[in-house]
Amino acid sequence: MRADAKKNRDHLLSVAGTVVAEQGAEASLRDIARRADMGLATLLRHFPTRDALLDALLRTSFDELTAKAAALETSGSPQDALASWLHACVAWTTTYRGVTELMAAAIEDPESALHASCVTLRAAGARLLTRAQAVGAARGDIDGTDLFALVAALAWLGDQPALAPRSARLYEVVTDAILTSGSSA
Amino acid sequence: MRADAKKNRDHLLSVAGTVVAEQGAEASLRDIARRADMGLATLLRHFPTRDALLDALLRTSFDELTAKAAALETSGSPQDALASWLHACVAWTTTYRGVTELMAAAIEDPESALHASCVTLRAAGARLLTRAQAVGAARGDIDGTDLFALVAALAWLGDQPALAPRSARLYEVVTDAILTSGSSA
Repeated sequence: MRADAKKNRDHLLSVAGTVVAEQGAEASLRDIARRADMGLATLLRHFPTRDALLDALLRTSFDELTAKAAALETSGSPQDALASWLHACVAWTTTYRGVTELMAAAIEDPESALHASCVTLRAAGARLLTRAQAVGAARGDIDGTDLFALVAALAWLGDQPALAPRSARLYEVVTDAILTSGSSA
Repeated sequence: MRADAKKNRDHLLSVAGTVVAEQGAEASLRDIARRADMGLATLLRHFPTRDALLDALLRTSFDELTAKAAALETSGSPQDALASWLHACVAWTTTYRGVTELMAAAIEDPESALHASCVTLRAAGARLLTRAQAVGAARGDIDGTDLFALVAALAWLGDQPALAPRSARLYEVVTDAILTSGSSA
């Protein structure tokens, strides 16, 4: 990709991140192009479909959360590291409403453009979990897929207008359930 | 409603329960009519739309779960009562795949045919929760809506093919999080 094409693509993704955070997964592609000061045709040249754009956007986020997990692996207590990472994951799902179904579908479908990033993210979370389990700071009977499922379930709650106001508290409840020596119930 | 009409309606609902358990919320109305030994026209006279049928079906289940909560209120320890009821709720959501969105929508929308049953069910769960909280057997910082949200989130997990195999274990994790002197992590 030429340097200016890459620059345009990165700019589109950054604007798309803002617009999807505001409008959810059904965000208008026309709005995104307009706010990026580009034509819709240019957007469609980079991202031929809404799914292609969302995939790229989510992949970027997943890669960031994976990088955060890697950084946390070498800093702080295993318990704090796991708690911080869970917090970052749930905060991210709160920003991007309507993406929970995409995540659940991606982890299931090896053909999905998002699958590899999703699997890598799950593995990064699993390493934090294993590290916390090794020092007795997390319950021992769950694995990385359980952790992924709990984050996805909290994200789903955040997408339901009637239940979303409870998602922060329920994040605490779920975190308490995972961290064995965390804040008590 | 005449007695034979009521009998037909009850029979249709019973068969619909079986078919929806097999095929999910997208179950074929034609299949339901056929297995009830009735014409599709008869089914449509009782339930003009799929939503009307699902509403009636879910209302029946909600009323049963409400009755179960009421029965548990006067039997066993507050902790066992709450755990049994949560178990029954999650087991029910496992039977009827694809209904989670309907539940979340119903609790939100006072105009929904399901709303009253949903609110009554939530109140019944809240009473079990309050009773368990009063003896220190459940964490004190959640209420009936949180409980409803957690059951809905577990139900959503059960609807995701890649995550469904984890839903039984995650039910345990969530129950542990709610019951303060339950099985430890």
